[in-house]
Amino acid sequence: MAQGKNTNSVMARSNTGAPAESIEGVRLASTACGLKRQTTDTLPLDLLLIEARQGSHVAATFTNNRFAAAPVELARRHLQQHATERPVFLLINSGNANAGTGAAGMAAAERCCSALAAQLAVQAEDVLPFSTGVIGEQLAVEKIEAALPVLQEQLVDAGWKDAGQAIMTTDTVAKTYSQRFELFGREYSLTGIAKGAGMIKPNMATMLAFLATDAPIEQAMLQQLLSQAVERSFNRITVDGDTSTNDACVLLATGDTEKRAINRAAQIEFSQFSDQLDKACLDLAQQIIRDAEGATKLVSISVEQGESESDCLEVAYTVAHSPLVKTALFASDPNWGRILAAVGRAPIASLDVDAVSIYLDDVLIASSGCVAETYREADAQQVMNKPEYTVRILLGAGQAVATVWTCDLSHDYVSINADYRS
Amino acid sequence: MAQGKNTNSVMARSNTGAPAESIEGVRLASTACGLKRQTTDTLPLDLLLIEARQGSHVAATFTNNRFAAAPVELARRHLQQHATERPVFLLINSGNANAGTGAAGMAAAERCCSALAAQLAVQAEDVLPFSTGVIGEQLAVEKIEAALPVLQEQLVDAGWKDAGQAIMTTDTVAKTYSQRFELFGREYSLTGIAKGAGMIKPNMATMLAFLATDAPIEQAMLQQLLSQAVERSFNRITVDGDTSTNDACVLLATGDTEKRAINRAAQIEFSQFSDQLDKACLDLAQQIIRDAEGATKLVSISVEQGESESDCLEVAYTVAHSPLVKTALFASDPNWGRILAAVGRAPIASLDVDAVSIYLDDVLIASSGCVAETYREADAQQVMNKPEYTVRILLGAGQAVATVWTCDLSHDYVSINADYRS
Repeated sequence: MAQGKNTNSVMARSNTGAPAESIEGVRLASTACGLKRQTTDTLPLDLLLIEARQGSHVAATFTNNRFAAAPVELARRHLQQHATERPVFLLINSGNANAGTGAAGMAAAERCCSALAAQLAVQAEDVLPFSTGVIGEQLAVEKIEAALPVLQEQLVDAGWKDAGQAIMTTDTVAKTYSQRFELFGREYSLTGIAKGAGMIKPNMATMLAFLATDAPIEQAMLQQLLSQAVERSFNRITVDGDTSTNDACVLLATGDTEKRAINRAAQIEFSQFSDQLDKACLDLAQQIIRDAEGATKLVSISVEQGESESDCLEVAYTVAHSPLVKTALFASDPNWGRILAAVGRAPIASLDVDAVSIYLDDVLIASSGCVAETYREADAQQVMNKPEYTVRILLGAGQAVATVWTCDLSHDYVSINADYRS
Repeated sequence: MAQGKNTNSVMARSNTGAPAESIEGVRLASTACGLKRQTTDTLPLDLLLIEARQGSHVAATFTNNRFAAAPVELARRHLQQHATERPVFLLINSGNANAGTGAAGMAAAERCCSALAAQLAVQAEDVLPFSTGVIGEQLAVEKIEAALPVLQEQLVDAGWKDAGQAIMTTDTVAKTYSQRFELFGREYSLTGIAKGAGMIKPNMATMLAFLATDAPIEQAMLQQLLSQAVERSFNRITVDGDTSTNDACVLLATGDTEKRAINRAAQIEFSQFSDQLDKACLDLAQQIIRDAEGATKLVSISVEQGESESDCLEVAYTVAHSPLVKTALFASDPNWGRILAAVGRAPIASLDVDAVSIYLDDVLIASSGCVAETYREADAQQVMNKPEYTVRILLGAGQAVATVWTCDLSHDYVSINADYRS
C-alpha cells in the first residue's frame, strides 16, 4: 500500500528502507535451495543461516497456537538447552512451514539441526530451526542438507538485506529495520528483519522476526525486554485475527556483558534500550500490516479511558476484527454505526454507553452513544481517505489505554485467500 | 444461494416456502409508509402491525449489544408492564433502525407507541416497537403516524406473507416458517417470520424474528421455551461475528390456558412443543444464513467430544469466524491447515492436539493433529463442492457437543459491505 504521511503520534517513526547495519558478532548467509517455487528466471532465496558468536545472549517468543509447528517446538527445546559459552545458529527456511506434519515433521526438523551441527562441529541444541510456508506438507530435508555447505561458506556480516528476502513467503516487500543509538557513551546498533502478511495463501504459517544488537545485555534482561516489546508490537497487530502455527521472534545480543551491561542496576540504559527495541518491533510490525494481504490502509485502533488495559484491548480487538468495520475502512466509508456496534458487543464487564466517544483522528464522530452534534460527514470522509489514521475510542471509565494496529478487508484479501493452492 | 439437498442430520427439515398458516388470535397488516427507498415502481412494504388478542402470552429475547437501539429498550420496558388481560401490539418498521439516535430516538419510539395506543384506545405499554435498517438516522415518525389508520383497517389473519416482506432490509428473500402439530389430541400451528443477512449495508441493524402459535402455553413456560430455542438457533448462527443493536425475537401464544396448558405438569406436551419451536427457530436461522451477504455455502461447524458445551462453542465460533477458514469455504478449497490453526488458537483451557480429529461430512481429513493417512484431497473436494455440509471437529476430551452454522466469506460480502451508503 501507499505509505502516506503519518501525522499521528501513535505511530513510530519508520526506519524502513534504511541500510541494514551489520551487527558485530552476527553473520548471515542466504541461499536458494529449491523449497520455494521458481516464478522468475532465478530461484528465490529460501534458506537463511544466522550465526551469533559465543557469549551472545538469545531471547525468543513463540506462537501460543496449540498446533505449534515441529520447528517451533524444537527451537523452544534447544533454546533451553543452549549454553551461552557456545555460538548459536538460527536455521530458517521459507516455502514450507513444517506444520501439521506429525512425527515425520519433528524428525525432519531434528535432522536439519543435526546435519548443520555435524558440519559446524557444534551440538544440535546450538541450532534453532524456524520454518515458514505451506502447512501440511513434509519438508524436503535433502534440499536443505545439500545447501548447508554453501551457507557456511557464505556467512558474512553484511547479509541482512538478503536475509530479509530469504524469509519472505507471499510478502511483497522485504521488511528490515536498523537503528544506531548510544549507550554508556558509545554507539551500538539494532537491526532486524520480519516477514508475514496475514496467515496466508495457501496457508502460510506466518510471522517471523529476527533482531540482533551488539549492545551488552544480560540474559535475564534480554528475555524481559523482548517479551515486553513483542507484547506492545507484534502482539498488537492483527490482519484477520488468526494466529499462525509458526510465529516466532528472536533477539540476539552479542555485546560482552563482563565489563558493563544492561541489567537491573543500569536503569537509564535499560529504559533507553527498551525504547529502542520497542520502536524496532513496532516498526517491523507496522511494515507487516502495510504489506498485509490486500491491505490499503494502516489503521490504529486506540482505546483510552478504560478501567483496565485488558478492557481497552478487548474493545480494540473487537473493533479491529469486525468484518463490517474492516470493509468500511476499505470503502473509506465513515460508517460510525459499525464502530459503535462493535464497541457495544466487546466482551468487557461493564460499559457505560453514554460515556463513550469516538474520534477519527481529531474528528469527533460520536459522543454519549450517538452521533455528535458537531459531526459533519465530510470531515470524517477526509480522514478516512488517508492511507493511515487512528480510530480513537474513549470509554470514559478510567485511565487505561491500549492500541492495536490493523488493516482493511478488501476484495484482494478474499482473492488472495480464496485462490486455489497452485 | 442455491439450496442444495441436505444429507446431514444436524440440519432441520426446512418448511421454507410452505404456506404461512394463520394463527387464531393473531392479525397482521403491512403497508408502505415511505421509510424504505423506492427502487421499483411500487413503494416497498416497510411497516408492519401484529396484534395478538387479549389473554395471549408474550415472550421475547433481545440483543446483548450495549448500544441497544431505542426501540429495543422501550420494547423491553413495555413488555414488563404489559398485562395479559389486554391485547398486545407489535409495531415494526424497516428502513431505519432508530439506533445510535440518543434521546431524540427514544422520544421517536415513544411517540410511535403513544400514537398507536391512542388510536386503538389501549395503553402505550401494550405496544412493543421494533425497528430495523440504517443506524444513526432519526426516525421519520410522521410517516409512521400517517400510516397507522390504514394499518388498523387492514388487520387480517392471513397477513404473514406480506409481513415477511415488510421487515426485509437487504434480505433477498422473505423468510417464513409454518408447521402444524398435534398436542392434547388437537391440531395447533406455529408460524414465524425472520429477517437478517449479516449486519449490513450501510449498517442495517439486523436480526428480527416474530413467531406465533395458537397452542396454550403458560407465560413462565413460554419465555423459557423461547430462550432455549433462540440459544440453540439464532444464537448459533454467525455471518461475521457482529451482533446488531436491534436483534430481537418475539413469540406470541394465543391459546387459552385455562382448561389445559403447556406447563411443568404437561411434560410430554412441553417437550413436543419445545421440539417444534426449536425446529422453527433453527429453520428461520438457517434461512438467514442461506441469504447472508454474499454467502454461497451453509456450513455446520459441529464440535464434539468437548469437556464442556462452552468449550465446544468457543472452538466452533473460532473456526466459524476465521476469515481464512471462511475464504477457503468460499473457494471450496480443502485447506484443512486453516481449520487446524483456528482450533489451535481457540480460547479454551486445555486442548490435547494429538486427540483432535477433523472431518468434512464423513471424510476424515486430520487426526492426531496432522493430516490423516487415509486422506485424499479429491474426497474432501467432493464435500466442499456441495452448497451445504458439516465441518466436524472431535476434541477427544469429553462428551459435550455444540453446533454453529455459518457461511463463507466471498467477494460479494466485501462488495456489499464496502459499498457507499446510497
